[in-house]
Amino acid sequence: MRMVDIIEKKRDQHALTKDEIEFFINGYTKGDIPDYQISSLMMAIYFNGMSDDEATHLTEAILNSGDTIDLSSIAGTKVDKHSTGGVGDKTTLVLGPLVAACGAKFAKLSGRGLGHTGGTLDKLESIKGFNISLSNEAFINQVNDINIAVAGQTSQLAPADKLLYALRDVTGTVPSIPLIAASIMSKKLASGADVIVLDVKIGEGAFMKTLEDAKALSRIMVKIGENFGKKIIAFITDMSEPLGFAVGNKLEVVEAIQTLQGNGPKDLHKLCLEIGAYLVYHAKLTESLDQAREMIEQKIQNLEASDIFKTMLETQNGTYPDLNDYIHTKGIISVKSESSGYVKKLNALDIGLAAMRLGAGRATKDDTIDPDVGIVLNKKVGDKVEKGEELAYIYNNKDDITEEVKTVLNAFTITTEFQEKKPLIIEIID
Amino acid sequence: MRMVDIIEKKRDQHALTKDEIEFFINGYTKGDIPDYQISSLMMAIYFNGMSDDEATHLTEAILNSGDTIDLSSIAGTKVDKHSTGGVGDKTTLVLGPLVAACGAKFAKLSGRGLGHTGGTLDKLESIKGFNISLSNEAFINQVNDINIAVAGQTSQLAPADKLLYALRDVTGTVPSIPLIAASIMSKKLASGADVIVLDVKIGEGAFMKTLEDAKALSRIMVKIGENFGKKIIAFITDMSEPLGFAVGNKLEVVEAIQTLQGNGPKDLHKLCLEIGAYLVYHAKLTESLDQAREMIEQKIQNLEASDIFKTMLETQNGTYPDLNDYIHTKGIISVKSESSGYVKKLNALDIGLAAMRLGAGRATKDDTIDPDVGIVLNKKVGDKVEKGEELAYIYNNKDDITEEVKTVLNAFTITTEFQEKKPLIIEIID
Repeated sequence: MRMVDIIEKKRDQHALTKDEIEFFINGYTKGDIPDYQISSLMMAIYFNGMSDDEATHLTEAILNSGDTIDLSSIAGTKVDKHSTGGVGDKTTLVLGPLVAACGAKFAKLSGRGLGHTGGTLDKLESIKGFNISLSNEAFINQVNDINIAVAGQTSQLAPADKLLYALRDVTGTVPSIPLIAASIMSKKLASGADVIVLDVKIGEGAFMKTLEDAKALSRIMVKIGENFGKKIIAFITDMSEPLGFAVGNKLEVVEAIQTLQGNGPKDLHKLCLEIGAYLVYHAKLTESLDQAREMIEQKIQNLEASDIFKTMLETQNGTYPDLNDYIHTKGIISVKSESSGYVKKLNALDIGLAAMRLGAGRATKDDTIDPDVGIVLNKKVGDKVEKGEELAYIYNNKDDITEEVKTVLNAFTITTEFQEKKPLIIEIID
Repeated sequence: MRMVDIIEKKRDQHALTKDEIEFFINGYTKGDIPDYQISSLMMAIYFNGMSDDEATHLTEAILNSGDTIDLSSIAGTKVDKHSTGGVGDKTTLVLGPLVAACGAKFAKLSGRGLGHTGGTLDKLESIKGFNISLSNEAFINQVNDINIAVAGQTSQLAPADKLLYALRDVTGTVPSIPLIAASIMSKKLASGADVIVLDVKIGEGAFMKTLEDAKALSRIMVKIGENFGKKIIAFITDMSEPLGFAVGNKLEVVEAIQTLQGNGPKDLHKLCLEIGAYLVYHAKLTESLDQAREMIEQKIQNLEASDIFKTMLETQNGTYPDLNDYIHTKGIISVKSESSGYVKKLNALDIGLAAMRLGAGRATKDDTIDPDVGIVLNKKVGDKVEKGEELAYIYNNKDDITEEVKTVLNAFTITTEFQEKKPLIIEIID
């Protein structure tokens, strides 16, 4: 088999076989096939796409390039959730305890953030003492004991994906739907869960810019999951404005705890409730989605979910935050509206970038994070606002945040006409 | 400027600027931009094409990556001719002396053959003693003295083209019309001629498979030439069957000499006459194309062109062949028709490959050539043939040529219906 023939075949709009896909993934992982042939193939795939079968074979080849996590010694249905990344997205911190309280097994391997979006690991590591490095054994035991563990990836999961992603990033071949699907699905399938919700975010602050692309990505991922005998549910959700009010690591932990206690932002509550209901129902813990919703609401009201979060933190050596003495910054600056009206737009990307520049996120992989800084929104899309009223608060440790204040202010578009809120959950594909 | 932005710009169907094109050609030539970014850009260009302006800028950037030949010390109009490569194409050997005899300056740098097509240098080197390594000074002096010199490339002409071509060859990005145009035109413009005929061959034995592609390539090359103030004339000619009868180095030299003396194959004579007429007319040596045709016919009849060829060979240390004692092979095998009828097809690619396997060409760059071997066709498309009659003669030095005989036989399609000859010159674009 010659790599150039595989490239030409895809270039000429023919479907690649399982053998051909395995050949180039294995060859690339071993270093036998050079970057320059893979990058031209990726560009040909960008233009000509891949069938569901090709995407499934690609997922399998990437999955088989490394280890897979064996969760079979965990009794019960293992559930997982993956977000394509957004601003203020602390869903995992809320959702995990909710479904664990309902009896699902939430065995979650998480990642760090890059650019304008944060990562679950960074949020958890802002909690004093919290240990993200669990052995496989400790991870599995913890899930068996308390239904939940969230840890960093220790095994070599899907190494071909890392290689491919690094190459795609510098060769203009990131936004290809089958390549994104195979990248996400190979890692999710390697992590071993049975029921997985994929939260595909669209809008300014998200990877997918259009509903059409998000639907196509969702559809192909559900199909790939089906081909592997897994239940995949794709949520297409709005990320034109940040999720909840808080953006920044400790700030988001606080908001997650408030949500677990029934005092969180409506949009975050709603998203966690719905995703949670799908996980709990498909884990066969209830007879209907409505029953699952009821069960989750109950676990919030009786504080069982909040207790599970506390237990998880303590099991992983973390100190449960004292919310009255948790966040310490040089200052809190309020950003005030320059006009009266309604919030028409609140650009999630701008808010994410401003938070990153404050130190809440990383511009490059080697940047360190300041866990205390960030932005708390006071107004969101559809809210009424008076001139001089606070739009947001900036928790900062830098001497000069003139630029960040300007960015946050400009992220808001205020109009005199009443603006209805956009629906958060746009579509559910399963 | 970032290379990834240039790739994404082309991927998203925007035209690249002169600066961007210079940036990636210069960066690649210097080794600052890696192969994997160039190959994904080449694939994006394959899919999205290039405007005439982009192709012109690309040609210029490739041209400027190396030396250019300064022919300004040659008095008169310098003419040149380039063929995209065919089987039995000995046009340069005939055309050069014809136009030199008419007073044009034929300063030609030629290349070697690879695969099923031969190269002019290989044909000339089959002549005992012929020296293809001329200094720039000797080359220019010879053209000033006798109007013609044919030599191998000594300077570093368009090194970026070599790098790009080697990469495109292994990344499935060869058949992109603007990339082919820039590759050809950068080398032709570096060689310094004022009037250039490009012979774009189509059919089985050629690089371009369709008339549509050949027209597009021709049009863009004429346009690029115009942008550089050069007169380019593109001939689109048929290469579904070989040109003339002879395929093989010494065999083609003999056929070229016969054609210069008025005894060559009709198709070869016709093509050299027409290309020659365009060169002579556009070099302003006659007032019309018809006058140019007349002048060329005269130079054949009075043997002036044949004499110039002899003078050129001798000036470059070659021994003018004694046609009665020139080709020496172990054997000459005749390939006979197995049926009666008319030749419907004669596959140039098959004939070229058979000649290559006999030793007349190279499968890889390091192969050596046997100058004596080759194939002489006895029948061509449209000819009547009786069962048992000779279709071709194989001049061979190998012990077993069973395969080659079979290939040559199968290259002929014989039918009972009368088959008209295809026109050789399909279109002229200028």
